[in-house]
Amino acid sequence: MPYPDTAEGFQVHDTKNWSTFKKGEFKLKPFEAHDVDIAIDACGVCGSDVHTITGGWGDVILPLVVGHEVVGRVLRTGPSVTHCAVGDRVGVGAQVGADLTCDLCKADAENYCPNQIDTYGAEYPDGTISQGGYASHIRAHEYFVFKIPEALETSLAAPMLCAGITVFSPLKRLGAGPGKRIGVVGIGGLGHFAVLFAKALGAEVYALSHSPSKKDDALKLGATGFITTNTDDWADPWKYKFDMLLNTANATDKFNLPAYFSTLKPHGVFHNVGMPEEPLHELRFQDFVTTGCYMGTSHIGNRPEMLEMLDLAAKAGVKSWVETIDVGEAGCKEAVERVKNNKVRYRFTLVNYDKAFGKRE
Amino acid sequence: MPYPDTAEGFQVHDTKNWSTFKKGEFKLKPFEAHDVDIAIDACGVCGSDVHTITGGWGDVILPLVVGHEVVGRVLRTGPSVTHCAVGDRVGVGAQVGADLTCDLCKADAENYCPNQIDTYGAEYPDGTISQGGYASHIRAHEYFVFKIPEALETSLAAPMLCAGITVFSPLKRLGAGPGKRIGVVGIGGLGHFAVLFAKALGAEVYALSHSPSKKDDALKLGATGFITTNTDDWADPWKYKFDMLLNTANATDKFNLPAYFSTLKPHGVFHNVGMPEEPLHELRFQDFVTTGCYMGTSHIGNRPEMLEMLDLAAKAGVKSWVETIDVGEAGCKEAVERVKNNKVRYRFTLVNYDKAFGKRE
Repeated sequence: MPYPDTAEGFQVHDTKNWSTFKKGEFKLKPFEAHDVDIAIDACGVCGSDVHTITGGWGDVILPLVVGHEVVGRVLRTGPSVTHCAVGDRVGVGAQVGADLTCDLCKADAENYCPNQIDTYGAEYPDGTISQGGYASHIRAHEYFVFKIPEALETSLAAPMLCAGITVFSPLKRLGAGPGKRIGVVGIGGLGHFAVLFAKALGAEVYALSHSPSKKDDALKLGATGFITTNTDDWADPWKYKFDMLLNTANATDKFNLPAYFSTLKPHGVFHNVGMPEEPLHELRFQDFVTTGCYMGTSHIGNRPEMLEMLDLAAKAGVKSWVETIDVGEAGCKEAVERVKNNKVRYRFTLVNYDKAFGKRE
Repeated sequence: MPYPDTAEGFQVHDTKNWSTFKKGEFKLKPFEAHDVDIAIDACGVCGSDVHTITGGWGDVILPLVVGHEVVGRVLRTGPSVTHCAVGDRVGVGAQVGADLTCDLCKADAENYCPNQIDTYGAEYPDGTISQGGYASHIRAHEYFVFKIPEALETSLAAPMLCAGITVFSPLKRLGAGPGKRIGVVGIGGLGHFAVLFAKALGAEVYALSHSPSKKDDALKLGATGFITTNTDDWADPWKYKFDMLLNTANATDKFNLPAYFSTLKPHGVFHNVGMPEEPLHELRFQDFVTTGCYMGTSHIGNRPEMLEMLDLAAKAGVKSWVETIDVGEAGCKEAVERVKNNKVRYRFTLVNYDKAFGKRE
């Protein structure tokens, strides 16, 4: 049973051999009225993919195709689809479903819907397990399919679908813009987008990193300044200076968080989008009281934010820093291993899908 | 050297004998152009007083007069004072000074000023240690002296100056009002004010408490409903229901915080105003991601909020639940011991200052 019943993808079969990918067939969910089938042309490689296939975030249903930064062409639309048409170049991020009827969905918070379906590893009502973008095709509800503006190149748009929206959503919602000073903590895949988008939104951006080697890149990305956080007293000159810190680091469990909090203006926000596998250092409410600050996190973004981000990226000429690599057993292996070892500046996009899967028309 | 060089108060000499108060004399700070001298007529007894005199919040400069919910009459004003006049009935809360020139002060965040002076136990530039309201007089910068509206009784206004503003400030700033559902966690001194003020601001208020015995009081205070949090699954019916939880409990170090977070709407805030002496349970960012929520805290409130709170209390007829007790060695002892043991519903105000200190005109 080939497509449209199934698709092919590069699967992980064992979290112990998490970088061993094998090409295999998998079942697509039943096609419904709002569904869109996409022939995938590119997929970003996200830190989440690595946390998932290594088992670092918990149990996984195997075999699994990961990848949730998908760009491709619409092959087929269900009879109720209005958001896109056959032939459109579209993207899919980290979510492919939600009930769209609950109070949260109605309030543009479908990314918190209790019935949300993650792009890979989640169970649909019929029992199908969703599979990601290291694959020939993806089937998704149209609400989670986004037209890609012409000005954005496919390989640069792909990583915006998860990494981009994950930082754009809190930046926008928390008011990053002219007159605001934003600190981006950690200059990696997420952090490089945070600098790009905070700048595009008009804010003054500083990059904060343990690693002085990131300075040149941070300034090229648009940061006004660079703060090295590898000394005990790094925060002293920055007390009460930031409206918001957007923490993209993966090693936050090793952070002395009160030092970061001390650099916030009163009632400022330490917003986290990294998900370390270990718990945080011991905290007390006293750690928050000097600046009356908040700490929290968020889950990707909603549809209006996604459309706004893509539009801003196109209009402001936001360019992701991307290294492309051919999709395949070898390419997937190299990509996830280098992401795991932080050896990418700053994002991989898997490309040349026709070579792996044929034309798919 | 009597007043105006000194004042008398009920002092604690030893954190081990934290409920033993002795009447003694102490030096007032040098009188300056913006200072106001107040003959104290009432002072609320705050949980902070107990955390301080027991040493629970750290080292204390002894002997110390605590009390930072002060109401009295203006006896004398410095030549630059414009906010009040001799004879006015005024209040002083938990802060008596700040530089009033820094960026924070200029942004109405004087309650986070790095040069703030706490009402008791803080060092003035000349070395004088500030002393609180279990005393005959207090000297404070006029910016931290607030006229008490006529409609508010002295003994009911006093505890608003710290406990009241501590909950009013985040409620107001975070948008408590019509159409918002607020959960108040912990029905004690702070919590009873949180219910009263959230209600006065027009919000729908629920009280959350481990102790079912607080239910009747919570409903009398104006809560729409009461949620008992002493079961493992208490949060299940309340998922995604609250715009904000205002946590006033002192035992938050024993809380399963993720259960509370699960009751917030997306991007809701768990705002804490209690200061447990112990660290919080181990946390992960994963605990915040289901609702994309924030956790934080705040420090009292600013002058505009204080004036707004007093005005609202007068206009909406907010009535603190207060038990009065005569100021004195015995009264102070009984009050702090009962606050320590949670045996007050819900606030003590020390009164009859003329009996302890004479008329002071």
